[in-house]
Amino acid sequence: MSEQTTHATGAPVRIFDTTLRDGEQAPGISLDVKEKLEIAEQLGRLGVDIIEGGFPITSQGDFDAVKAIAETVGAQPLAQGADQPPVIAALARCHPDDIKRAADAVGPAQHGRIHVFLSTSEIHRHVLHHGASEDEIVAQAVEGIQRAREFTDDVEFSPQDATRTDDEFLKRIVDAAVEAGATTVNIPDTVGYAIPHDFGATIGDIVRRVGPEVAVSVHCHNDLGLAVANSIEAVRHGATQVEVAVNGIGERAGNCSLEEVVMALATREDVLGRRSRVRTREIGRASRLVSTLTGYPVQFNKAVVGKNAFAHESGIHQHGVLQDRLTYEIMSAEDVGLEGRQIVLGKHSGRHAFSAQLEEMGYDLTAEETKRAFERFKELADKKVEVTDADLEALVADEVFAYTEEAFELDRLEVTGGTVSQPEATVVVRRTADASIHEETATGDGMVDAACGAIRQAVRPWVGATPTLVNFNVAAVTKGIDALGDVTVQVEVDDQRYTGRAVSTDVVEASARAFLAALNKSMRLQRARDDAARSPMDTP
Amino acid sequence: MSEQTTHATGAPVRIFDTTLRDGEQAPGISLDVKEKLEIAEQLGRLGVDIIEGGFPITSQGDFDAVKAIAETVGAQPLAQGADQPPVIAALARCHPDDIKRAADAVGPAQHGRIHVFLSTSEIHRHVLHHGASEDEIVAQAVEGIQRAREFTDDVEFSPQDATRTDDEFLKRIVDAAVEAGATTVNIPDTVGYAIPHDFGATIGDIVRRVGPEVAVSVHCHNDLGLAVANSIEAVRHGATQVEVAVNGIGERAGNCSLEEVVMALATREDVLGRRSRVRTREIGRASRLVSTLTGYPVQFNKAVVGKNAFAHESGIHQHGVLQDRLTYEIMSAEDVGLEGRQIVLGKHSGRHAFSAQLEEMGYDLTAEETKRAFERFKELADKKVEVTDADLEALVADEVFAYTEEAFELDRLEVTGGTVSQPEATVVVRRTADASIHEETATGDGMVDAACGAIRQAVRPWVGATPTLVNFNVAAVTKGIDALGDVTVQVEVDDQRYTGRAVSTDVVEASARAFLAALNKSMRLQRARDDAARSPMDTP
Repeated sequence: MSEQTTHATGAPVRIFDTTLRDGEQAPGISLDVKEKLEIAEQLGRLGVDIIEGGFPITSQGDFDAVKAIAETVGAQPLAQGADQPPVIAALARCHPDDIKRAADAVGPAQHGRIHVFLSTSEIHRHVLHHGASEDEIVAQAVEGIQRAREFTDDVEFSPQDATRTDDEFLKRIVDAAVEAGATTVNIPDTVGYAIPHDFGATIGDIVRRVGPEVAVSVHCHNDLGLAVANSIEAVRHGATQVEVAVNGIGERAGNCSLEEVVMALATREDVLGRRSRVRTREIGRASRLVSTLTGYPVQFNKAVVGKNAFAHESGIHQHGVLQDRLTYEIMSAEDVGLEGRQIVLGKHSGRHAFSAQLEEMGYDLTAEETKRAFERFKELADKKVEVTDADLEALVADEVFAYTEEAFELDRLEVTGGTVSQPEATVVVRRTADASIHEETATGDGMVDAACGAIRQAVRPWVGATPTLVNFNVAAVTKGIDALGDVTVQVEVDDQRYTGRAVSTDVVEASARAFLAALNKSMRLQRARDDAARSPMDTP
Repeated sequence: MSEQTTHATGAPVRIFDTTLRDGEQAPGISLDVKEKLEIAEQLGRLGVDIIEGGFPITSQGDFDAVKAIAETVGAQPLAQGADQPPVIAALARCHPDDIKRAADAVGPAQHGRIHVFLSTSEIHRHVLHHGASEDEIVAQAVEGIQRAREFTDDVEFSPQDATRTDDEFLKRIVDAAVEAGATTVNIPDTVGYAIPHDFGATIGDIVRRVGPEVAVSVHCHNDLGLAVANSIEAVRHGATQVEVAVNGIGERAGNCSLEEVVMALATREDVLGRRSRVRTREIGRASRLVSTLTGYPVQFNKAVVGKNAFAHESGIHQHGVLQDRLTYEIMSAEDVGLEGRQIVLGKHSGRHAFSAQLEEMGYDLTAEETKRAFERFKELADKKVEVTDADLEALVADEVFAYTEEAFELDRLEVTGGTVSQPEATVVVRRTADASIHEETATGDGMVDAACGAIRQAVRPWVGATPTLVNFNVAAVTKGIDALGDVTVQVEVDDQRYTGRAVSTDVVEASARAFLAALNKSMRLQRARDDAARSPMDTP
């Protein structure tokens, strides 16, 4: 209340979303093209400025996803009031093949960006670049940036592990990057090491150094719980772009959380003097979609999007909020799209009303997809009195986005168990390719274990190694005893993890479906991996 | 890296843990005396400086818990190398009855603290204090502090909603509080509204104002994801105490997370110049214990204690970490006690080895408790090859701390279900008080629903209203197909929520046990509430 905001220019902070690139690097997340596209569409509706869709050289799937996003979300504005689509970015090392692949992937977008990076800290240079000298690193960076500029005039450069990089060398490489044609200089706190006041000062120096023509960005990790504060402090010192992920997912403790930084800017514009262009009412849905498709639950007390973020428990707090919400709230659940509207759909709703509802929620489904979703909806409506937006989102994610042609499908499941008899399950799965039917029975330590065991036996001929269940999580999508159980599992096959999810009012059935979904995904992605041109480990 | 640390005095920052007071205010958490004591013991082993045990006037249970903590954890040091036990604090409004009750509760501690608070912001004065004038608020605060000083010479004062309080009035009430005898002045960011640089400046002003004899504390909420940064910025400006909760639980988005602020201080002492006395290797266990007993899962990407906080996914990151962990890590999983030691216990282990292991882990169980835990351990060891520390913690929490004399116990459960037949469950529960047996059968939308329905029928005569399942969460405690499923449920009875949890290798059985545990707790706490002297809403 005594210090002045340094750069209250008032221009909106540009939001660079990396949910689909750094976010997807979180353990066990493996989104396919369809899932990435669905998230990208929601990011479009949110109105983020830049969508980093992936790291195209690393796999055919990543290339295809970025290209599909560039062709659709990158071609026309989805956010209300926006006059241009988001910039579509792709990551590349400073290597010709990486850069060519990134350029091809973002090519179809109205505005494509190539984001090249290179490690600059002493430890990274030593470990990742065989002890490359500072001169060699600068030369590689300049070459990479210049090459990228041959494809697009929007090039971002990141000196990886910048916050552990020698001050003088950081300045030197930033100067060289700008000279070589980088239009955005991003300062990544790769290992989550920065402390706000110190980081802000560093960013202020760089902003002054590069001048107003070059965008200064920050990319903060949350290892010490400081990612949002570091980003905000950077903005206060003149950074014009922040890199974020929905729900703060990403490597280790994740990235700066989109919803927290956006709401901090929106709520404290009085002190920060800057906002973003994000449509905050789309935040709730973005959070649910990312949680659902990645299988990463959001903890109850997560800021902004946790289910308790707007819950008041103590008598004194409840007393105050009942009289005036502002007593204990600085923003409202409605502001961030968290209050699930109770829609009128129920067991007597027809397909037309159902389609209209999905359309209003922003889904663009084919007739076949709508048909499948509607069938599951009718089953659900038989069991559940109120079908909410959140239920529908979970159902569409399960039935439409998790669905693939080559899948095994669960035709039948029968389970018995309890404290007396040993749990036993019989499953019948159908292989879509040849419509063959496979029935197996297994026992287990629990009913989920038995069901997964039976499925494993049924699909054994088509899965290379023995799949192992490494993570198992169930959450109720909505309140009440008839809540829809949302199960996410992570299954390990050949040292790779695959996430599967499914919803059902029965947790054992949902678990069996999720397990099968993960196995389907493992078969699909294994093929995609086999097609990939090369691994990112082949070059420095 | 240009700015200097303002107050690098080097004295350790005092860690004031409010997991058991503000943390417990999170929706659906209702810890009983035994559970609070267990958490307090772990806080003692962690070496926090102050433990706020509760708000004694609000219920007999809260009073009993604070008193029990004062008598045990407050009487002797538990942390290795500590020469005195933690200060035990209790919350009180500026009201004679509150203060007397708090004083009686902390009385048995070697060092007891009374923490009085009063709202000072305009909106709080208007809504919570019937428009009390600034003069009236100052008079109430002074009276409360003076009265508290009659019982102890360690009195903390908090002007609630300080960050939305008029600057001049905040200074005035801080001056009056110090004059009246407050030895600690705490500045709460009650609604999570502060921005680090601005908050730091405010704290700096207050530190200079009160002088070196008075401790300045901060209590930050995480609504905008800034609680840790605000706390650290306050420390940098001279605050000597930070208020925190394990896993960051608390009202809404929760409090400043203990583990994040402690590790930020430990990792960046080079910039911050201060550490805490917390033994970081006890953090992992504290986090697991609080998560288990509160039923609040920790999200995968939670900083420091999330299961992915030390996981590396991308090829480049893995490549670097395999050569040198420091490439992508600024602290290690061992530093924070996250690497679960694989203990040698298995199905052939005897009771002696089992007891010795529990003792080494810090548990102090009665012969009867050890017997019950051992029986469950043998059942588990039959199903699970490796029994880890985390498994044992979950088992003890379930079998010992969730156990009560007056409980209904689940004698038998039989379940059938699947995609064809309607799920059906038969339960047999035993009422401990009269050993009566109650058998019921119910159907449901899922097997968990059916099992809970049957239990509800069986206990109906003893539970006032119809209990509703409002939250349902399952997590695997450990990896592998034989993972122990840890189920937490929240059940609503008469507008009150109760948490129940249970572990089993079968998810439906664990759910049934958790549901019954929540009902047992509802009956127990309802009685405790009936005994409570008064509600906190009776006075301003």
